[in-house]
Amino acid sequence: MTFIDRHTSGVFIIAATPFTEAGAVDEASIDSLTDFYLGCGVTGMTILGIMGEANKLTAEEARGVASRILRRVDGRIPVVVGVSSPGLDNLKSLSQFAMDQGAAGVMVAPTPGPAVEDRVRGYFHQVCDALGPDVPICLQDFPQTTGVQISTATILTLTRDCPQIVMLKHEDCPGLAKVSAVRNGSATADTPRISILCGNGGLYLPQELARGADGAMTGFAYPEMLVEVVRTHQAGDADRAEDIFDAYLPILRYEQQPGYGLAVRKAVLKHRGAIACSRTRAPGPKLTATDEAELMRLIARTEANVKELSHGS
Amino acid sequence: MTFIDRHTSGVFIIAATPFTEAGAVDEASIDSLTDFYLGCGVTGMTILGIMGEANKLTAEEARGVASRILRRVDGRIPVVVGVSSPGLDNLKSLSQFAMDQGAAGVMVAPTPGPAVEDRVRGYFHQVCDALGPDVPICLQDFPQTTGVQISTATILTLTRDCPQIVMLKHEDCPGLAKVSAVRNGSATADTPRISILCGNGGLYLPQELARGADGAMTGFAYPEMLVEVVRTHQAGDADRAEDIFDAYLPILRYEQQPGYGLAVRKAVLKHRGAIACSRTRAPGPKLTATDEAELMRLIARTEANVKELSHGS
Amino acid sequence: MTFIDRHTSGVFIIAATPFTEAGAVDEASIDSLTDFYLGCGVTGMTILGIMGEANKLTAEEARGVASRILRRVDGRIPVVVGVSSPGLDNLKSLSQFAMDQGAAGVMVAPTPGPAVEDRVRGYFHQVCDALGPDVPICLQDFPQTTGVQISTATILTLTRDCPQIVMLKHEDCPGLAKVSAVRNGSATADTPRISILCGNGGLYLPQELARGADGAMTGFAYPEMLVEVVRTHQAGDADRAEDIFDAYLPILRYEQQPGYGLAVRKAVLKHRGAIACSRTRAPGPKLTATDEAELMRLIARTEANVKELSHGS
Amino acid sequence: MTFIDRHTSGVFIIAATPFTEAGAVDEASIDSLTDFYLGCGVTGMTILGIMGEANKLTAEEARGVASRILRRVDGRIPVVVGVSSPGLDNLKSLSQFAMDQGAAGVMVAPTPGPAVEDRVRGYFHQVCDALGPDVPICLQDFPQTTGVQISTATILTLTRDCPQIVMLKHEDCPGLAKVSAVRNGSATADTPRISILCGNGGLYLPQELARGADGAMTGFAYPEMLVEVVRTHQAGDADRAEDIFDAYLPILRYEQQPGYGLAVRKAVLKHRGAIACSRTRAPGPKLTATDEAELMRLIARTEANVKELSHGS
Repeated sequence: MTFIDRHTSGVFIIAATPFTEAGAVDEASIDSLTDFYLGCGVTGMTILGIMGEANKLTAEEARGVASRILRRVDGRIPVVVGVSSPGLDNLKSLSQFAMDQGAAGVMVAPTPGPAVEDRVRGYFHQVCDALGPDVPICLQDFPQTTGVQISTATILTLTRDCPQIVMLKHEDCPGLAKVSAVRNGSATADTPRISILCGNGGLYLPQELARGADGAMTGFAYPEMLVEVVRTHQAGDADRAEDIFDAYLPILRYEQQPGYGLAVRKAVLKHRGAIACSRTRAPGPKLTATDEAELMRLIARTEANVKELSHGS
Repeated sequence: MTFIDRHTSGVFIIAATPFTEAGAVDEASIDSLTDFYLGCGVTGMTILGIMGEANKLTAEEARGVASRILRRVDGRIPVVVGVSSPGLDNLKSLSQFAMDQGAAGVMVAPTPGPAVEDRVRGYFHQVCDALGPDVPICLQDFPQTTGVQISTATILTLTRDCPQIVMLKHEDCPGLAKVSAVRNGSATADTPRISILCGNGGLYLPQELARGADGAMTGFAYPEMLVEVVRTHQAGDADRAEDIFDAYLPILRYEQQPGYGLAVRKAVLKHRGAIACSRTRAPGPKLTATDEAELMRLIARTEANVKELSHGS
Repeated sequence: MTFIDRHTSGVFIIAATPFTEAGAVDEASIDSLTDFYLGCGVTGMTILGIMGEANKLTAEEARGVASRILRRVDGRIPVVVGVSSPGLDNLKSLSQFAMDQGAAGVMVAPTPGPAVEDRVRGYFHQVCDALGPDVPICLQDFPQTTGVQISTATILTLTRDCPQIVMLKHEDCPGLAKVSAVRNGSATADTPRISILCGNGGLYLPQELARGADGAMTGFAYPEMLVEVVRTHQAGDADRAEDIFDAYLPILRYEQQPGYGLAVRKAVLKHRGAIACSRTRAPGPKLTATDEAELMRLIARTEANVKELSHGS
Repeated sequence: MTFIDRHTSGVFIIAATPFTEAGAVDEASIDSLTDFYLGCGVTGMTILGIMGEANKLTAEEARGVASRILRRVDGRIPVVVGVSSPGLDNLKSLSQFAMDQGAAGVMVAPTPGPAVEDRVRGYFHQVCDALGPDVPICLQDFPQTTGVQISTATILTLTRDCPQIVMLKHEDCPGLAKVSAVRNGSATADTPRISILCGNGGLYLPQELARGADGAMTGFAYPEMLVEVVRTHQAGDADRAEDIFDAYLPILRYEQQPGYGLAVRKAVLKHRGAIACSRTRAPGPKLTATDEAELMRLIARTEANVKELSHGS
């Protein structure tokens, strides 16, 4: 069994949850989507996150999705399961299920509430106590969605005090200074290293890698770009990595529109054959005909960019 | 079967969900709490709301709580079930379950998101379509918690356009002008009447009744006060109603502290013998020894006030 | 010259800024209001706060109001001046003006922005550096309005690190546990004492005093109640203090409605002859005829309560 | 005198306010920056906005900045002045000053407060009444900063009811559907046309133009790109316009980081010789050495892109 740890790097793709036209979980598309991600060369997967519409699934559906993906992956790559929940009991129960099924760790965001940092620290201690020391945790720092800001000092304190908090999903924005601060403040005499994977749709990935991030954890519908950028950057060719990134940037910045972006991602995934239907569960975003045309134009321009990039190389 | 309707009035008590010391749903206390509420003379109950810690229950637990309360009530009073959920599918499924078990209607708050009113109106149309026309809806207007403000105009438009939206749980704050505006804008030539029950812990109940509210829907741990105030006011003695209210106001305003108040309510309910244990589910508020002493002092003062009030009358 | 210090106690009334019907600053009413507050026995005044509509004044008007009040007070009681501002230059310039005119200190809230505590701490260090060590500061902790939460740990750190931060205006809510935590965490071996005056309209004053608060800093339009409650409590008669408080609680809780409350306060102050006109500057709250009648009823009930209280004593 | 009107199109650059190292308004740099913008071919300017740090200026400084820019521009292009303020009196007084000095109109955002749309509509009616019918207004729709969402219906209602509201500064996000909705809902039988200029740092400019926006109103530090993109698009070559846009997108998306972006913009403007010093007023963002190096790298890559673009054309 592989667990995430303090040195995990690469690209953990955030997985969409595919639905049929009738709105049921689409099991066949779960398989094809998993195969698609594996085919893109991702290092890991993160499932049942916000992008996975986890909060619109029944508990049974959520477990079913996790099981099916974990079976399909079959240990080839580590899978992190999002378990954030208003109540600790439900969080614990889903975590145990996920770990039993072979997950590599769980992802937890702070619960909404006053952003005072002692509350946030207290909450993560409660989570660690509830899960027991054997469950590796990825701390999700996503204030735009959770409404809870976490300072670098709190992240480093938790890194020190909770041995099982091994990874940071960084998506504070603006957040580049925070990547530097966490990178420079961990792996020191008194604070262990923490793995940093970056979200925010990948919008600042080249800068984040240059500042010491270990990779990306996001759901961009061209995962092969993320993989290539991280690989090329780690191989030492930051310029080439950024050229690749820039070729996809127009569609990446389009996909990164908060809320609406999920519909874009699913439409691209469908366009690329990874899922059969782009439906989101209600209430959720939907593309109009104008949106579709706009997106198709961006897809065409992206594909032309990518072609040119390979010819140019 | 009794349903809530456009003329429903009185006191719908918001029910706590009792847990055992070990954290399980406490079925015996569900029964004793239901009996306690019935003994206080409430007109109805509202269950699985925020105060009921609904979002910390598993789906099975939520259904179990609803079933047990509905069985215990056994048709003596109408019971409204809170069904708000990030996804429409889960909302619909819990609603159907509740109605099948004998609920009098469901309570729905707008989903978080941009507060533009066309989105809010669109959402309630989606909800009505999903539930079908036979499920009466209480619209919960609680912007402090949902983050979504709803104008009087939108409430009246929904009252007109959605025949099954028959009741408003009013808890905007400041919100007295809104009570007047909804009261005066409904039951007109073009807009049907809507029942208005007020929340906010009851903090402005005498004023709300004077402005035409039909009663209260809140979880104050002395429900007999709410019952008496509404009854006395409806009988035409507004002064006496307000005297009764004022006698309880010190503890009412203490109980109404956002977030923390739930722990206070459960402690009072335990003190009064309605439930066996005052535990909330984690992460949740807890009383310290200082808090307990402070509360006990307020309880003693309240009981003295009430005694004096009866003697004085 | 009197400055606020770490042992300041009593009631600092938050002053309204009176306007004429035409909307100009009403200088005569500034004098009569100041006399009214002095006649109520307040220990100090706080001017140019949110309640003083400071952000709707021109810079010249703000300075004029401060000068006139300080001249009228003429050193009889300490006056704190609210100087919060989006920019440090404007904050500094108003502070210097106020101190030159004889203010006893300035009140500063954190600027809006991410609530990470290192930012908040950094900001107060910037403020202290800008003002120089001779200007005593009252730190305003009012997250409902500023959107910035401050933990007890940050308040205590600032108490330690910034000798000129001598007073906390406490109005976090729920905030009773914070009063206890700041009280117990200051005046220790490593942290100096900090004076705690409580806001929130005075809604929890008896509890706050019991937990060690030094008094109130709020704008309740019956300042004599605040004065009497604090004095009686400090004299050791907590029960009598709370009886006095409870007699005014119905109108106090009515006045404390966020936003709208300012119009109520000004109407009461006008009713009591303290100011000539209850107008607020646009965009601001205004009472309708219904609101006026409701308020007059509460005023009458309050006066009856108070009469009974004196008879009973 | 030129006023903005319902058909205004092109690029209104949002101007920074330059300061000296010592923190004073830098008058020489105001002139050089104005010349720089004019040299880039902008259609208009918008001054004293959020990006202009207007809320950190004294009232005198704000008027001084407006006067100096208006004198330097000398009628060659229309200048819109940001006048948003917590109080209507200050808003009115700055508007009158600006119009007297030759401004082409004023920009107004809704005041913070409950986002119910009747409040927003009421506020804009108050503003129009206060300014009188001769002052053209650009309505700023920027919910991320104001916290107030405005629906398309409200924008169209205001377009109908307030003849002087002639322009929308669109920066809701996601907001592409809103551009389409406002465009399609105005210039109809019952609603006059409204000019739509888009903000958001220009992040979606090609899409916004395709959906009928009339241009951009934003502060990107390469204004010549905005000018060229709008001109090329209006000339019918959407593909070429988007190629130009894409060449600058990497630095544009970097500059668009909320809060932090102002420091980036000023650094680029200094690098390009438009201002003498990149300082922002405290509390404000500042670039570290790491940030500077990162930015210089992006500048170099952008310049290479642009060179290649011209060669390729």
